[in-house]
Amino acid sequence: MAEAGSRRRSRGGGGAARRAERSSISFETAKYIERNIPNVEVLNEEALELIETNAEIILEEVGVNFVDNPAALDRWREAGADIDGERVRIPRGLARKLCSTAPSEYIQHARNPEKSVTVGGRNLVLAPVYGPPFVRDMDGGRRYATMDDFEKFVKLAYMSKWLHHSGGTVCEPTDIPVNKRHLDMLKAHMLLSDKPFMGSVTEPSRAQDSVDMCGILFGKDFVKDNTVMTSLTNINSPMTFDDVMMGSLEVYAKNNQACIISPFIVGGAMAPVSVAGTLTQVLAEVMAGVAYHQLVRPGAPAIFGAFVSSIDMNSGAPTFGTPEASLVTYGAGQLARRLGLPFRSAGSFCGSKLPDAQAAYETANSLNMGLLAGVNFMLHSCGWLEGGLVADFEKFVMDADQLGVLHGLAKGVPIDGDAPAMDAIREVGPGGHYLGCAHTQANFKTAFWRSELLDYKPFETWYEEGERDTRTLANIKMKQMLANYQKPAIDPAVEEALEAYVAEKKASMPDAFT
Amino acid sequence: MAEAGSRRRSRGGGGAARRAERSSISFETAKYIERNIPNVEVLNEEALELIETNAEIILEEVGVNFVDNPAALDRWREAGADIDGERVRIPRGLARKLCSTAPSEYIQHARNPEKSVTVGGRNLVLAPVYGPPFVRDMDGGRRYATMDDFEKFVKLAYMSKWLHHSGGTVCEPTDIPVNKRHLDMLKAHMLLSDKPFMGSVTEPSRAQDSVDMCGILFGKDFVKDNTVMTSLTNINSPMTFDDVMMGSLEVYAKNNQACIISPFIVGGAMAPVSVAGTLTQVLAEVMAGVAYHQLVRPGAPAIFGAFVSSIDMNSGAPTFGTPEASLVTYGAGQLARRLGLPFRSAGSFCGSKLPDAQAAYETANSLNMGLLAGVNFMLHSCGWLEGGLVADFEKFVMDADQLGVLHGLAKGVPIDGDAPAMDAIREVGPGGHYLGCAHTQANFKTAFWRSELLDYKPFETWYEEGERDTRTLANIKMKQMLANYQKPAIDPAVEEALEAYVAEKKASMPDAFT
Repeated sequence: MAEAGSRRRSRGGGGAARRAERSSISFETAKYIERNIPNVEVLNEEALELIETNAEIILEEVGVNFVDNPAALDRWREAGADIDGERVRIPRGLARKLCSTAPSEYIQHARNPEKSVTVGGRNLVLAPVYGPPFVRDMDGGRRYATMDDFEKFVKLAYMSKWLHHSGGTVCEPTDIPVNKRHLDMLKAHMLLSDKPFMGSVTEPSRAQDSVDMCGILFGKDFVKDNTVMTSLTNINSPMTFDDVMMGSLEVYAKNNQACIISPFIVGGAMAPVSVAGTLTQVLAEVMAGVAYHQLVRPGAPAIFGAFVSSIDMNSGAPTFGTPEASLVTYGAGQLARRLGLPFRSAGSFCGSKLPDAQAAYETANSLNMGLLAGVNFMLHSCGWLEGGLVADFEKFVMDADQLGVLHGLAKGVPIDGDAPAMDAIREVGPGGHYLGCAHTQANFKTAFWRSELLDYKPFETWYEEGERDTRTLANIKMKQMLANYQKPAIDPAVEEALEAYVAEKKASMPDAFT
Repeated sequence: MAEAGSRRRSRGGGGAARRAERSSISFETAKYIERNIPNVEVLNEEALELIETNAEIILEEVGVNFVDNPAALDRWREAGADIDGERVRIPRGLARKLCSTAPSEYIQHARNPEKSVTVGGRNLVLAPVYGPPFVRDMDGGRRYATMDDFEKFVKLAYMSKWLHHSGGTVCEPTDIPVNKRHLDMLKAHMLLSDKPFMGSVTEPSRAQDSVDMCGILFGKDFVKDNTVMTSLTNINSPMTFDDVMMGSLEVYAKNNQACIISPFIVGGAMAPVSVAGTLTQVLAEVMAGVAYHQLVRPGAPAIFGAFVSSIDMNSGAPTFGTPEASLVTYGAGQLARRLGLPFRSAGSFCGSKLPDAQAAYETANSLNMGLLAGVNFMLHSCGWLEGGLVADFEKFVMDADQLGVLHGLAKGVPIDGDAPAMDAIREVGPGGHYLGCAHTQANFKTAFWRSELLDYKPFETWYEEGERDTRTLANIKMKQMLANYQKPAIDPAVEEALEAYVAEKKASMPDAFT
């Protein structure tokens, strides 16, 4: 509401008024979603048992590969798996048993304690897009992402009411050397925001840097005893665990930091074309990954991840917001809950090249599904465009606004207090209206979710103001937000120490761009 | 696929090739949706019982108004209600008892028997937008709707694979006199399409014309014994039943034709600002309306309707795709099922002035919710724009494409046959890919829903083709569909008789434009 209000008031206003407003703006962050509505469950007991049985058969008979990772093979051998080269075959029941030491929920601490999140249970934590090498906005078009773009996204996430989490690689800062960009990214999350964030996974040493920088930000003792990062470990589906991802996972597990262990599925390419087959593979992969994570450190927080899209058999492109991806996600949520693990899936997925109607249909399909599938951690919840190749500034703001819809839906239907509104119905009676009645007066401010972006104006006003579409409104809002951004307060000694750590680390290595 | 295929093949092709393709196009219509997934239920038993009890209290203590309708008051008096002026107070239990004679599902026959629909149970029948006085397209902008527009929409609905129903007043043909336009609209539904349709409700005599024209189309005896129309009777919420709507309802009920009995709710104006309060009023209104319908003719098909939006307390505009509207709809579905009635709600609702991202977010929120709320008849399932003031040609095509997503989701997760894909997982193994495996070869054609409109092309192709957005693609597709339209075959004698009926009726009355 702050932005919407300032937009209205500042029209034609002078610089002094704008400055005065700016200093009064507060960046409210909603509490993570606590669901008061049921999950959608598409698998019946027979289907669940079949998929669980089949996943165990796959682990035992086919197995999974741990590539270039002799230590992992040793850990598996010791745990009772059958090792054949890099192939790990896991006897029935072993993976599930190992998974049982992972907690069903955990707290990820933010440096602002009010913004710490509990991942798991009936909760849903929302984090922005992750990984795009390109960015797009209306002014500059599509281009390689830079650190400047990255910082802008961190600021927007910090200021977005419905985002609980600052995310990780919100875009790839391609102007910074590959071996150094994690340092700048972490520093940006730590200094430009006070929301929780993710660590680096592109090298075990970078995961260690992430842990060390958290030691500076939170204090080393605090980090030893608490989870302050949730990081993303992708599985190379089908059933391959590479040494880089596993190396990072090992660092995080040893340090009791949370890992999302996530098959990366483009259905028809990395998994079978059927929903049941895909779910079988996803479950087998996650069980193997989480079991390994628990072998490294029993009790460290792990999330059942599932990145799901399907392939367009005409063009070979991944497609998003499709019914099959939704069915896989609904089913994966059920499997995760039966495994007692927090669940990560869904996001602002779309294949569109622009933040247009296609993007919004596909995104809304996925966001709604994510809420109803019981997702606990939703990466990519805003800003995703073009199959994940692009982080779009306008779409970031558009999606972040829509996340408010999920918060509203999750409330369910209260029937306590004056919610039944019997006095109002009696007061108004047949043929009346509720606009002025006592119940409306008492409740209208909080009764309805209201977009802070979309157009609710009369046609004539909208027409006179230039027939602006959603993207145009988002462009205006995005710029206003960045203009109004204020850095959260931090202990200057901590900031200095972080700056020094990053400067020293960067100076210690030659630049590498691959 | 026909349109998508012809679009690609015809690029650079000659007129002869296009004509040859045109004659080979078939307009496939999907069967109505039979759900194989559960409904979302947001009300627990305590909430359901409270709302049901409160609705009975409202009917007994506050009552409803039947305006300018002495015959209705007589029927109610005879049934045991308490009549005070136009106020009808209904003793507890009476309305529910009267509702019990309405069927829980019914067949609405189409003149093409393959396109008849069963309304109720686990089914979902999709019909287009209803009622807008304006139309919009990219070429002509926003303008008053005409009969020419109306006919175009009927043709598009006929050719749209995922639409099962031709609807009713898809737009208001404002160039035809008010007292005659129902004749032209019905004729268009009957001759330009072979899908089921709706009758006129703007005057009892026009409802009778609808029945009489169906007598010509289907045969009088057939119409006597079968339901061939589903028509929309709105309640003037709160709790007012006007004589025009009730007069039409009486005509349809007497002729055993189906009526949707539908509160028209803008939450905060026509109903309380709380979800529980709105549901209480909706249930009371529907029970009174269906009970009255059953008083006119026990056993005639009636649908529990709920048109739900909420008011934006800043601008006074109705808002769509909002969480509160979804919660009301989920709850209303539960109440309808407990009353044993088919349920009508949801649609391609949006407040946007353009078919842009706002329109698509709001629409997707509502379409997904409609499927999951157990809606049996979804009016407005495509083409709605600007709070229902506008029927948009491009959005019609865009939404109609998205209805395919609902068909895919409703399939659920089969586990029979080769769905578990164990052979495929064994065949491919760790590190392989599924593109060429036997299971994929056998299933890829039907495995994934595929849009026939949205952009799945590589970025470079999309860029070279002019960076077209969804609206532009829909404009192209809409024109191709209309160019390829072919009228369904009909007995020339029936067509002649319908033409004669309409001509005679129109000649018998002076034009009226109000």
